[in-house]
Amino acid sequence: MRTRGSSEVHLTYAEAGVDEPREQEALKGMLDLLQSTYSLHKGIGSPAFPIGHFSNVLDMGAGLGLVLTTDGVGTKLVLAQMLHKYDTVGIDCVANNVNDLLCLGAEPVAMLDYIAIDTIDEKALVDVARGLRAGAELAHISIPGGEIAQVADMLSPTRGASTIDLVGSAIGIVSLSGEREDLPPLVDGKKVAPGDVLIGLLSSGLHSNGYSFARKVLLNQAGLRLDQYVSELGRTLGEELLQPTFIYVDPVLGVLKKRLAVHGIVNVSGGGLLSLGRLPTDCGFLIKEIPPAPAVFRLIQRHGSIPDADMFAAFNMGIGFCLVCAKDAAKPVIHEIASHGYRSIEMGKIVDEPRGKIVIEPLGLVGSGEVFTPA
Amino acid sequence: MRTRGSSEVHLTYAEAGVDEPREQEALKGMLDLLQSTYSLHKGIGSPAFPIGHFSNVLDMGAGLGLVLTTDGVGTKLVLAQMLHKYDTVGIDCVANNVNDLLCLGAEPVAMLDYIAIDTIDEKALVDVARGLRAGAELAHISIPGGEIAQVADMLSPTRGASTIDLVGSAIGIVSLSGEREDLPPLVDGKKVAPGDVLIGLLSSGLHSNGYSFARKVLLNQAGLRLDQYVSELGRTLGEELLQPTFIYVDPVLGVLKKRLAVHGIVNVSGGGLLSLGRLPTDCGFLIKEIPPAPAVFRLIQRHGSIPDADMFAAFNMGIGFCLVCAKDAAKPVIHEIASHGYRSIEMGKIVDEPRGKIVIEPLGLVGSGEVFTPA
Repeated sequence: MRTRGSSEVHLTYAEAGVDEPREQEALKGMLDLLQSTYSLHKGIGSPAFPIGHFSNVLDMGAGLGLVLTTDGVGTKLVLAQMLHKYDTVGIDCVANNVNDLLCLGAEPVAMLDYIAIDTIDEKALVDVARGLRAGAELAHISIPGGEIAQVADMLSPTRGASTIDLVGSAIGIVSLSGEREDLPPLVDGKKVAPGDVLIGLLSSGLHSNGYSFARKVLLNQAGLRLDQYVSELGRTLGEELLQPTFIYVDPVLGVLKKRLAVHGIVNVSGGGLLSLGRLPTDCGFLIKEIPPAPAVFRLIQRHGSIPDADMFAAFNMGIGFCLVCAKDAAKPVIHEIASHGYRSIEMGKIVDEPRGKIVIEPLGLVGSGEVFTPA
Repeated sequence: MRTRGSSEVHLTYAEAGVDEPREQEALKGMLDLLQSTYSLHKGIGSPAFPIGHFSNVLDMGAGLGLVLTTDGVGTKLVLAQMLHKYDTVGIDCVANNVNDLLCLGAEPVAMLDYIAIDTIDEKALVDVARGLRAGAELAHISIPGGEIAQVADMLSPTRGASTIDLVGSAIGIVSLSGEREDLPPLVDGKKVAPGDVLIGLLSSGLHSNGYSFARKVLLNQAGLRLDQYVSELGRTLGEELLQPTFIYVDPVLGVLKKRLAVHGIVNVSGGGLLSLGRLPTDCGFLIKEIPPAPAVFRLIQRHGSIPDADMFAAFNMGIGFCLVCAKDAAKPVIHEIASHGYRSIEMGKIVDEPRGKIVIEPLGLVGSGEVFTPA
């Protein structure tokens, strides 16, 4: 059980709507109950791991591992509603799910969508489907089913356009034992070791995280309008904020299918680069290169007078996805990624430090758990 | 893409919150877009059917079919919220999903849960997990992952307790080609033929459908209170309305594993017995026996002065699940179901009538599509 809420709003910004310790406590109780279900299904389809990483894996027999995940779009949907523009959030929905599947090395196969809506708005629904279709095309998946729930009583009153919640649940496939040459090999992160290289793939913008925080700073505090042209963005604020999340299927499967020595895969989502700490490895990360933060992050930081430490714990800051690979695989990995039209950089290396400790040397930040602090 | 909204509120009760033709129109546009994704994934995991029935099936190779479905609990959650009682809706969540998987003959394997919540309420979340755990136990599935989205901006303001949306997505397995003896055989409904027998399994109450309608009649129109003891129910109204949906896994898998001649399987959900029309067969249904409607349905009917035709199109009226089987399989099927502690009756037979025509002889009702009318 993961939480999107905690990923959406920064820790030190409890007033923005998240009460982190209480959430963690509830989460613990839920996890205990849900983990007790792992032994309830016998035979084909038993969970292969005790605890979920980014996704879990079921053993389907014959070396086939089935990876399952579910994720929604979160409060990026509030912006879609404010702008009456629903044709891209479907891409985010697909991206959030398939990017999580990739973290176990899985080839995404299919996704189901769930849409909660207050009142039926044909145009909004068809536009959502347009985005889902576009995302499915980029991820090479089918969307063989879904559900629309008209539950006005449960959703917030309309802001002049339909209130919509959009959630996906997706499956992917891996070779569990390594014997299936038709499938990418399972990457569970346990091979990550000191000396490995950290490669970061550039993001398209905010992706789907930090939106409650961004909205609070840019709209409520700074008083910017979504239809306002912002010269440093080169477009309106609304256009920037609805920029769809990158779908990393092509470059990552390209790398995996070439059997390059990838040891760990991380979707940079809630908590930004702190997501690296989700790798189940007793190592730290030393980041020596980081690209300049894209304009949208600088805009948020300036208007909110937000320290670097808080920005990096709330946003991806330009890096949307990471691969950890063996030292000599770094160049071919970056080359393969580029061949699919995605940019990546060698950010640093894996070091012999306590689990999940992340040093961003150029900015003097040290992170672990859910916070960065100045070194 | 199915809709829960349309299933929740009766057609002639547009004022209760559903605008059916508009919904159908939107649905058509979405379906066209989503069906165009079926060809996007090549190789293992391609959809086996052009259009979803209750669930869809992906061909995983080696005769293994993977059945996927997603469903939420709908506005039954509003009652849980009004009563501050969240420990049973998890059972409904599991039931709605696994009962749909069963419609293709699938053995349920696992479910992921998605919880949207306004403000974190540890007790509510742990109670939701308790229900999920109880449901998982009855369905023999694991819950290997999930997501909590704290999205206060998207949910209706709190009614003194947390606003929660609860959705599941589940997978099950079948033998696609019939050659896998370790798996139940795929039941796609195409073998249903005149002369077959219709068997109905009793429901536990409203299950998860018709709640917006029931609430409107019982609470708004009749002015009943949820904490009110209703003698004909033998308990409070709130207790009755939160009665968990039956999980039919044990009796249905029992029947399937004995390889009894089951030709069609129907989860009676939105639209009550009109759900029979979802079987992809060019036959009609002649119902000659129907059990007396349980007390909760009579209560709703009396307080709302609702004709039988409308009751049967909105509620399950006591029959929660149906099996269509060969004539000589009827007795052993009913016997097998009873051996798992579930009650069922032989309701009638399949007849050579236009597709989806349903005659309920004892009540003089004829139904098809989304309405029943007096004969």
